[in-house]
Amino acid sequence: MTQHKFDCHMILLLLHPSTGNALVESLQSCPATNPSMLNVHLVPHTHDDVGWLKTVDQYYYGVIVFSDRNNIQHAGVQYILDSVIDQLQKDPARRFIYVETAFFYRWWKQQNQSTQRIVTQLVNEGRLEFINGGWCMSDEATTHYSAVIDQMTLGLRFLNDTFGECGRPRVAWHIDPFGHAREHASIFAQMGYDGFFFGRLDYQDKARRMKTKEMEMLWRASESLTPPLADLFTGVLPNGYNPPEGFCWDQSCNDAPIRDDPDLEDYNVDEIVQKFLNASYRQAGFYKANHIIMTMGSDFQYENANLWYKNMDKLIKYVNALQAKGSKVNVLYSTPSCYLQELNLANLTWPLKTDDFFPYADDAHDFWTGYFTSRPALKLYERLSNSRLQTCNQLEVLGGPKSKSGPFGEGDSDTMSKAMGVAQHHDAVSGTEKQHVAYDYARRLATGWAHCEVLVRNSLAILSGSEAPRVFCENLNISVCPLTESSHKFSMNVYNPLGRTVSWPVRLPVNGSVYSVTDANGRAVDSQVGNVFISLKCTCYIYDMKSSCLLPLLSVSINNKSVTFDETTGLLSSLTNLETNQTIQLTQNFYWYNASAGNNKESPQTSGAYIFRPNSSDPFVINKTAETQIVTVSSTVQEVTQWFSPWVSQVVRLYEGHRELELEWTVGPVPVADGLGKEVITRLDTDIKSSDYFYTDSNGREVLERRKDYRPTWELKQTEPVAGNYYPINSRAYIKDDKHQLTVVTDRSQGASSLYNGSLEIMLHRRLLYDDYRGVGEPLSEPGDFSDGLVARGRLLLTFTPPDTAADVHRPLAQGMVLQPLLSFQDGTPSANTKLEFSGLQTDLPPAVHLLTLSQWDEDTVLIRLEHQYQAKESKTHSQPVTVNLQKLFSTLDVLGASEMSLGANQWKEDMDRLQWNTSKPLPLSAKDPSPWEVTLNPMEIRTFLLRVRQL
Amino acid sequence: MTQHKFDCHMILLLLHPSTGNALVESLQSCPATNPSMLNVHLVPHTHDDVGWLKTVDQYYYGVIVFSDRNNIQHAGVQYILDSVIDQLQKDPARRFIYVETAFFYRWWKQQNQSTQRIVTQLVNEGRLEFINGGWCMSDEATTHYSAVIDQMTLGLRFLNDTFGECGRPRVAWHIDPFGHAREHASIFAQMGYDGFFFGRLDYQDKARRMKTKEMEMLWRASESLTPPLADLFTGVLPNGYNPPEGFCWDQSCNDAPIRDDPDLEDYNVDEIVQKFLNASYRQAGFYKANHIIMTMGSDFQYENANLWYKNMDKLIKYVNALQAKGSKVNVLYSTPSCYLQELNLANLTWPLKTDDFFPYADDAHDFWTGYFTSRPALKLYERLSNSRLQTCNQLEVLGGPKSKSGPFGEGDSDTMSKAMGVAQHHDAVSGTEKQHVAYDYARRLATGWAHCEVLVRNSLAILSGSEAPRVFCENLNISVCPLTESSHKFSMNVYNPLGRTVSWPVRLPVNGSVYSVTDANGRAVDSQVGNVFISLKCTCYIYDMKSSCLLPLLSVSINNKSVTFDETTGLLSSLTNLETNQTIQLTQNFYWYNASAGNNKESPQTSGAYIFRPNSSDPFVINKTAETQIVTVSSTVQEVTQWFSPWVSQVVRLYEGHRELELEWTVGPVPVADGLGKEVITRLDTDIKSSDYFYTDSNGREVLERRKDYRPTWELKQTEPVAGNYYPINSRAYIKDDKHQLTVVTDRSQGASSLYNGSLEIMLHRRLLYDDYRGVGEPLSEPGDFSDGLVARGRLLLTFTPPDTAADVHRPLAQGMVLQPLLSFQDGTPSANTKLEFSGLQTDLPPAVHLLTLSQWDEDTVLIRLEHQYQAKESKTHSQPVTVNLQKLFSTLDVLGASEMSLGANQWKEDMDRLQWNTSKPLPLSAKDPSPWEVTLNPMEIRTFLLRVRQL
Repeated sequence: MTQHKFDCHMILLLLHPSTGNALVESLQSCPATNPSMLNVHLVPHTHDDVGWLKTVDQYYYGVIVFSDRNNIQHAGVQYILDSVIDQLQKDPARRFIYVETAFFYRWWKQQNQSTQRIVTQLVNEGRLEFINGGWCMSDEATTHYSAVIDQMTLGLRFLNDTFGECGRPRVAWHIDPFGHAREHASIFAQMGYDGFFFGRLDYQDKARRMKTKEMEMLWRASESLTPPLADLFTGVLPNGYNPPEGFCWDQSCNDAPIRDDPDLEDYNVDEIVQKFLNASYRQAGFYKANHIIMTMGSDFQYENANLWYKNMDKLIKYVNALQAKGSKVNVLYSTPSCYLQELNLANLTWPLKTDDFFPYADDAHDFWTGYFTSRPALKLYERLSNSRLQTCNQLEVLGGPKSKSGPFGEGDSDTMSKAMGVAQHHDAVSGTEKQHVAYDYARRLATGWAHCEVLVRNSLAILSGSEAPRVFCENLNISVCPLTESSHKFSMNVYNPLGRTVSWPVRLPVNGSVYSVTDANGRAVDSQVGNVFISLKCTCYIYDMKSSCLLPLLSVSINNKSVTFDETTGLLSSLTNLETNQTIQLTQNFYWYNASAGNNKESPQTSGAYIFRPNSSDPFVINKTAETQIVTVSSTVQEVTQWFSPWVSQVVRLYEGHRELELEWTVGPVPVADGLGKEVITRLDTDIKSSDYFYTDSNGREVLERRKDYRPTWELKQTEPVAGNYYPINSRAYIKDDKHQLTVVTDRSQGASSLYNGSLEIMLHRRLLYDDYRGVGEPLSEPGDFSDGLVARGRLLLTFTPPDTAADVHRPLAQGMVLQPLLSFQDGTPSANTKLEFSGLQTDLPPAVHLLTLSQWDEDTVLIRLEHQYQAKESKTHSQPVTVNLQKLFSTLDVLGASEMSLGANQWKEDMDRLQWNTSKPLPLSAKDPSPWEVTLNPMEIRTFLLRVRQL
Repeated sequence: MTQHKFDCHMILLLLHPSTGNALVESLQSCPATNPSMLNVHLVPHTHDDVGWLKTVDQYYYGVIVFSDRNNIQHAGVQYILDSVIDQLQKDPARRFIYVETAFFYRWWKQQNQSTQRIVTQLVNEGRLEFINGGWCMSDEATTHYSAVIDQMTLGLRFLNDTFGECGRPRVAWHIDPFGHAREHASIFAQMGYDGFFFGRLDYQDKARRMKTKEMEMLWRASESLTPPLADLFTGVLPNGYNPPEGFCWDQSCNDAPIRDDPDLEDYNVDEIVQKFLNASYRQAGFYKANHIIMTMGSDFQYENANLWYKNMDKLIKYVNALQAKGSKVNVLYSTPSCYLQELNLANLTWPLKTDDFFPYADDAHDFWTGYFTSRPALKLYERLSNSRLQTCNQLEVLGGPKSKSGPFGEGDSDTMSKAMGVAQHHDAVSGTEKQHVAYDYARRLATGWAHCEVLVRNSLAILSGSEAPRVFCENLNISVCPLTESSHKFSMNVYNPLGRTVSWPVRLPVNGSVYSVTDANGRAVDSQVGNVFISLKCTCYIYDMKSSCLLPLLSVSINNKSVTFDETTGLLSSLTNLETNQTIQLTQNFYWYNASAGNNKESPQTSGAYIFRPNSSDPFVINKTAETQIVTVSSTVQEVTQWFSPWVSQVVRLYEGHRELELEWTVGPVPVADGLGKEVITRLDTDIKSSDYFYTDSNGREVLERRKDYRPTWELKQTEPVAGNYYPINSRAYIKDDKHQLTVVTDRSQGASSLYNGSLEIMLHRRLLYDDYRGVGEPLSEPGDFSDGLVARGRLLLTFTPPDTAADVHRPLAQGMVLQPLLSFQDGTPSANTKLEFSGLQTDLPPAVHLLTLSQWDEDTVLIRLEHQYQAKESKTHSQPVTVNLQKLFSTLDVLGASEMSLGANQWKEDMDRLQWNTSKPLPLSAKDPSPWEVTLNPMEIRTFLLRVRQL
């Protein structure tokens, strides 16, 4: 028997049932294994989506929801946890892992003290183990790292506060997400996880890995961070996350129970044992060690855990009984971390992985690349909500305790944190949930913001000294704001959550024709109705639709850049960077792929919420020409509107002082009366010699190189020339050659590809007529508020530079897109003693440093994350270590102490002691901190501190 | 709060969870109620069919069975009991009832001592209560009282042996059977049950009872037994056996769980509480007392009992919380016996019921009268198996301990007892199970008999002194017996399980043409190949198919009776009793009703396993004429064969010394290639002036008067002129007028009716093309062994007498049909010291006395049931008290002691203390025993004794 390092164990007091005597027994957390045998680790688990076919609350309580007259899932998480806790108590050998803290948290607070004590003991003994432990199991393709880190922190903190060290998850567990982002692996590594397991990867990749025993590997998840900082042991699970065929004993399964009473008919022990031995040996053929893992569970299983445990108890008993007759298979209850520990002890060498696991295909024509774009409005709202949550968090810190209970009532950021936590789920922001569930996510975010609004009002009242009513205009995107439209005199506050000054265009709907606009210092702002743009911390642009003009045009330009339009087609035709004096030919248009209806001879696969499968590789152009109209021409903004069809239009804008070209697209309602599902893209065709290469970000941070019809780790047999080349973009994509780089910064997650030399396409919207057979059971056809289908609107920001200075532009531009200013309005004139300007920071952060997190932790502590926002080598200027003094950050907070934490904030940095793997040896960090207060950030590094503070 | 008599309670030791101190608390078995409120008794229960869509073993283990690609039921009883026991432990207020001992027994023996102790405590505290408690919940229409009493005894004994008095069920519980037999109520009363609840009754009857608050009543279940011997308090449950609508919280249900966390969405406590109050008040409107019962459960529910209890806990909490605000509803966990006790204490007057609850209709065209005949071969096999089990039991007693372990190996009667136990189930002998389950019942009976065969061989070896091999010929009904067909010399043993000498025709297939047949005393028996019939204890009839003859005929007769055949049609034309010199015109023919395919404008109801619904009231005649052939004419038997069609034939037989006319019918395979389902009847049309009246037995005992288009207890609106007049017959039916009574004794349960004056029809076989939507999900179309459909063969015995002597003939005739002689064969000549004749009884029992039970109980005790087999007043000769001396019964057993027991043998007679009800006062028995050994039986009385015996 091997010895185990895993040290979270306790003395267990067992009350002997017949004598009542207390037996004292010491239990090690990990079960004993047998080094001379094949050890089969059974991992009892449930996979509990925090929303999918039902809302998260419906899943918690087990509400039955009907869809097309069939009930869709019983699935009641409250009962799962009840049942598992009962069953774990019946035998100390039994184990269970729990993953989704959003559910566990709800359950825990409904338990009485006695149950809480029992659960704590089970956790302390390693019988109940938390795995992953975030608020949800996040999607990897469509999430932004900021929100992912937040949701992980939310879950891990609850576990840490409730159970301490024994509740700290050691393994990341993304068994269901549809492809895996390298940035997620990097985040998990920085959070201190020892390993990572997942279930889904490309079927060709899996086949090869099984053959070469590369199902388990070391993932080096960053090109910037020094190994092993972002190294993560990664295992592909053998059966997705299901049990081997024939061994599913859940209520929801149909496999034969073990019938071991020889007095009854159909005794089947011998048959089942043999089948299990066969399955074990087969699986062992794909893995390196003499330990293999079997996931014993699936979606919402263990609602009646007795079924599982009773049959697994028997399986273990009868399989291991054969050891006496020479069998070399040893089966045991285990957990991913106990399995991982055995792999670590096995001292093997593991293959190295440096790219990612996108796109995911489970068959030749089944590429899960549609969800990169599915539900574009939800994806935007989620992103906007993140911005609002960061603002809310910051204002909670800056405003102090009265932010939560002040002149405008009780407010909080927790509601929004939790709403954002569930929105990161792999069937939430991914767009792969049912319509009623998508509404629920949006409603939660709105409720979260309503709680934040109170907090923000309180905080701004404290910071400004004005308790005058303050409104937020939620509908500025459709030019609606009752206050500005009716008031003759109003003031606007702009809160900028970034760590530095930013220039931001603001449009407000007004009814008057003459306005005087002044800034915080009372100075007149160069403003005008219909057309004003100024560069200041508080930036206003007051606009009136009536003052548009129609002109023949050839080009528009503002100081540093210009674009031309084709006279015949009205489409963009070139883009010039006047600073660098470079020009490219650039044609942009809108197209739609005809979504497969499944009536294709190669495969019945349809396009759906998950899957993108065009009927043809050639998209239909929406219009070869655009009706083009100059709306505004001034020294601060030039604005051109293009009409492609009744359901596709675009506004092209150039702002003074900005380096980007803004394309504000409006798509929808996508017409489907012709019986054709449509996947709408915009395509930029340039003369950049990008060949087959293009670049996409991973969760909004590091950028990966992509190559058409190619995968870095296996010989790809391409079967879907379009869908098989789509990748998720969360913040940007670019193409480049030696001289030119065209970067597109997006406002939300989307799918993108480059199918031709010099071309970059981005999928904007999708409306489909068929379900795609991955369980959601609905075609993705979102209803609109005012029409038969959803209208989506968004912005693409184009920057055009030489490659070696591209990051200097797109990095801050993308962060500005993520953390947008919050506008609020007060009627009338501010009272005399109102403070009109305030900065929480003493000074702007250095250009390379991003303020990722600033939130209240405990009464006297705040959590801060500082991020180096440049990759190694991408910027001559900024890809360098940079130092920040923690004591000199805040204008109103005195920093009394600082303790560095793991990225997940559930462990002191100094206590982090991850398992080491043969492939990588720890190296010293490249730069050290000059002093305890002065912390140095290396490229792409995020440092997390708990600061003890006092309000000045 | 009311005081409770129910005395089965115990001291409960609770270990306080936080201090470990033992708290001593006394719990009364029944929960407190509130006399000033409406008390709602929630009765958590599961209804576990011992076979239906799955076999009993499949149900026990929870095997998934697929039917038309859908899995048909998860249903795992092992998990139900696991789960309920767990949940009961969580709160002493929680209660559960368990009903089917066949399942409980299996589960119990798989439990460890610790669980057994817990369960015992729960039973002692009344938290787990056994209800009904037979091996199964028997069918009431198609069962014979002998097997019903046996299966009840089997279950009750297990409970008594395991739990003692606290395990004794006090309430009979037939929530699912499809109509209710008066004899069942009588049996339950005699078994000591305090009350009876059921779920199904005619929809018109139910509507009326709800209106008049007659849902609860006193059922006087015998016309012969002195009240209150057969009086049984009977309650109709409000919702079948389901919970009120909206309150089903099982895994298998779709009702909303109680969502009581105000932090989550969709808090629904107020809505659910209001709905429950409404349901309670509505139900209270149909019942007399301020106590109402709600069955909280259904088929195979509580597999995950937590779902039920968690939500019921909340329901009770929130409903009762309203009492503080003036609500007058008090809801509590309860059991049927606690509810019954409250009704008893309420001291109300209840209506009296004296007829039965047949037929059952749940809608105007939905009469559950098809199952009276469904699966005729299974029904026969079950009846034959009862005969064999009685023989097996008797020979176990007579042969002594070596019967179970003797020269032929290990044998037992338990296997057969259990197989018969499950065969009584209301989806077993009823014929309403799936085909694969019907096979399983038959297989179990065959296995049971295989165990009995060994016992019988051992016993006969002991009793005869010959250990020579002995075979049983299972296929004599199709003239197959390898031994008699091949051997030149063999001996036959005939074991007669009746308490008196009987004459029995025997046919054996032989290949020789000359045989010498001798009896036990070596005397030559008047025998002949092709034709022999003798009247002896051992009776042989050796028959060769080749010796048939074809003659024109007009009539056949044997001493006491004669029949004539119509020369033109070949049908029976008259029947004469030569003893009484009375003759009736009697035409008999075969017909089929065209089964409804559901395409009828009144209702989509089809004919199926349960439902009989002819398309037309006029059946099709199979043939107006029969090809008729005299097969045998001798002094001992006259035999005429009639051929009606390739699939319908009949042999008409008259035996010397017998008073009955035997009609051996053969029907099948019923052709359905014409797309028409067929329900085959034979109809006897006579000139008896029976008007609308006819008579049918109840479970083979007392006879009830039936009247066409009439129900004794309500104004019937007849909607199905044929199906609505069908009644079950288990042993006999008759029509009569002042002078003539024509009685038909059957060999199995069948459906029968009299639709015309002088007419009696019996349904023999059914083959249908559609399911009838009652869950079985299959059309009743039984496959045959050698053809495309099942061939059924059976016998109807006709007796024709004056009414006042009819019982003297049909009572013994019917008992002889139930308990048939067992034939066994040995090759060659018996060895010299073989004892050729043996009687277990010293002498024949008196004509009125039937030996109902003789079986080994414990090592030194045997169980005996003596039955008065005549109703009061039906026989001048026999409807009188009759006395038997228990010490003088047996030839080889010395009776050392006798203790009288309840009919179920789970209580001493003297301890029986049933609840008394206002309607009836106990009266003294009409006849008393002359001495402790001499026991007197009154008409229809069954007396049960445990005899302490010693083998002589």
